[in-house]
Amino acid sequence: MKTIVMPAGFQAAGVHAGIKKGGSRDMAMIVSDVPCAAAAVFTTNQVAAAPVKVSRQHINSGVAQAIVMNSGNANACTGDAGMRDAKSMTELTAEQIGCPSEDVLVCSTGHIGDSLPMDKIEKGIELLAAALSYDGGEDAVHAIMTTDTVPKYWSVQMMIDEQSVTVFGMAKGAGMIEPNMATMLSFLLTDAVIDSVALQGVLTSAVNDSFNRISVDGDRSTNDTVFLLANGQADHTPLSVDHPQWGSFVEAVKEVTRELAFQIVKDGEGAEKFVTINVSGAAGDDDADAAARAVANSFLVKTSWVGKEANWGRVMDAIGYSRAKVKEDKVDISYDDVPAVRCGVAAGTPDNVLSKIVAKSEFSININLNLGDGHAVVYTCECTEEYVRINM
Amino acid sequence: MKTIVMPAGFQAAGVHAGIKKGGSRDMAMIVSDVPCAAAAVFTTNQVAAAPVKVSRQHINSGVAQAIVMNSGNANACTGDAGMRDAKSMTELTAEQIGCPSEDVLVCSTGHIGDSLPMDKIEKGIELLAAALSYDGGEDAVHAIMTTDTVPKYWSVQMMIDEQSVTVFGMAKGAGMIEPNMATMLSFLLTDAVIDSVALQGVLTSAVNDSFNRISVDGDRSTNDTVFLLANGQADHTPLSVDHPQWGSFVEAVKEVTRELAFQIVKDGEGAEKFVTINVSGAAGDDDADAAARAVANSFLVKTSWVGKEANWGRVMDAIGYSRAKVKEDKVDISYDDVPAVRCGVAAGTPDNVLSKIVAKSEFSININLNLGDGHAVVYTCECTEEYVRINM
Repeated sequence: MKTIVMPAGFQAAGVHAGIKKGGSRDMAMIVSDVPCAAAAVFTTNQVAAAPVKVSRQHINSGVAQAIVMNSGNANACTGDAGMRDAKSMTELTAEQIGCPSEDVLVCSTGHIGDSLPMDKIEKGIELLAAALSYDGGEDAVHAIMTTDTVPKYWSVQMMIDEQSVTVFGMAKGAGMIEPNMATMLSFLLTDAVIDSVALQGVLTSAVNDSFNRISVDGDRSTNDTVFLLANGQADHTPLSVDHPQWGSFVEAVKEVTRELAFQIVKDGEGAEKFVTINVSGAAGDDDADAAARAVANSFLVKTSWVGKEANWGRVMDAIGYSRAKVKEDKVDISYDDVPAVRCGVAAGTPDNVLSKIVAKSEFSININLNLGDGHAVVYTCECTEEYVRINM
Repeated sequence: MKTIVMPAGFQAAGVHAGIKKGGSRDMAMIVSDVPCAAAAVFTTNQVAAAPVKVSRQHINSGVAQAIVMNSGNANACTGDAGMRDAKSMTELTAEQIGCPSEDVLVCSTGHIGDSLPMDKIEKGIELLAAALSYDGGEDAVHAIMTTDTVPKYWSVQMMIDEQSVTVFGMAKGAGMIEPNMATMLSFLLTDAVIDSVALQGVLTSAVNDSFNRISVDGDRSTNDTVFLLANGQADHTPLSVDHPQWGSFVEAVKEVTRELAFQIVKDGEGAEKFVTINVSGAAGDDDADAAARAVANSFLVKTSWVGKEANWGRVMDAIGYSRAKVKEDKVDISYDDVPAVRCGVAAGTPDNVLSKIVAKSEFSININLNLGDGHAVVYTCECTEEYVRINM
């Protein structure tokens, strides 16, 4: 549910270090009492920020104890100096909390191309360490927000071997969110007992079904990062595929990532609608995925929803130019359960019936290519004038 | 130059047939006194409008004598009835002007999914035939406009074998213009003497260097069509690669398509800027093309120009997620001739210097990947709030 429940043995903090103008929080820290099994998924962009490169190295061991992040500056395209600054963030954090710097993960988000103000960062890390608290989740959740209008978090609690286990996650999203998780940070924490290899498998699968299924504007950032730390403070037998409650744990992580992904779409820059694009009957899953993303990323489709017109012709157009194989006269499209297109032509539903569906805050477009068994789903939002204003 | 010079032996007309609301012209006709060598380039969208399918059949012979077009209705996704309607448009036109219906080409543009109002179309074709005139170019140029704010045309005149030869072209564009020429119609006319095979070669090459190099919003339509008719009324020896003035003719067709493409970008929906994206030093031309299009199609890049910020980080981001091979620390980016990025990091040029360039109505972004010899250029515009309003 949408509540902040910190798993046992995790402290957090969020402070204003002065990187952003105004007084809003711009740095966060999460620290486990003990070293954690650690998993991560990073941006696929060939241009990766320095903190991504440093965290990629640090996650190799499968162990981490802390996360430090700043907003207001992406530390991307900053060369060797940027790498030194990102490493320095891990070293300063390690000094404060008493662990090897290799056990600290680092994230940055914000404007690309500027050097980090390391004096402010250094001061911020001191403030964060002093502010760490087992109740600090809410401060951290607010500190990672950028153009987000609401904080994003989700908690699932379950019993494993009669022990209470928590999976808690927070995220920043808004703008630049595409299938490949652009400008998105998410930190997941759990007190479950699990090794890092198993944990990575759970995280990869959960990210594929959540953050990689959402699209706001088709861009992918240099800084996208998802971390999952498991500190093993819950006293149950270690989780593995053979554990009777393995499925519950996997589903808990999926629920947290899915709910965070939905919150990101619903808070897309300027967005007020949550639209599910379902493609079935494709020649294969890859084709279904290509067709769904073509629709979800078409600005002509997304702007038509603002005007509350179904305009299914633009959907036909988008699947037609996608990489998916399409036979025009086999295509069926429904808005929610109402037929709009049958065999590639208008199904005869009056425009005002379809318009009423598109006017809703949540609806789905269900596309059947009638060529095979491939299916895919992508979640997206409309494109508003507000989106342009925010990104000007 | 931007003037209407109808080549010898071509008549044209444009009328209001009542397909569009209001009194603006919504049908056009172009007729040659004699059958022409004919060439065409059509949309690559797998969902193609009925008139595209009919014109594809009719162009096969390499001969055409007339073009008939309507706006206000795309006759796309209209099934068998739409095919009958498109064929009927060619038959009605053929009856009026006295030629085989196979020698009539047909285009439609407008809303997808509605049946053509054939009573109005039939009446419109009668009006067009009655209005045909050697001075009718201006009426036709206005009749093919949709959301265009200015009519688009270009003429080149040259001497071949001491005979005056004209290449004249008109286009409709605005919105939905992408590399693959979306919702774009263009009709080119010449009185040159040339066979249809040679003509097709000239047109394909010219389209690749012009209409396929522009991007407004990344969409591609169901109706894109470019026609080139050569009626041979100029009394010179037939053009072929061996003709001493072959190059002049090829360049004339290229000039017309290029100028029409530029006019389309400059009149992109809501757009006020003309931006040239040059990519050089790519591993290959395909890579250069992918990188240039990723930048030209990034709404985050295009919205940043509205705010008059260079924001070169978003350009780095876009090339990074493109299909092009990119080594971050080799990338150089200049705005016009001013360095913004050298070896993947800020070149040290003050932000306000770059902002002044981006504030101009025309500027170029020159990206060198420093990996090979591949190069490509794409022309685009900014994305404004107006774009969203037009497409709502």
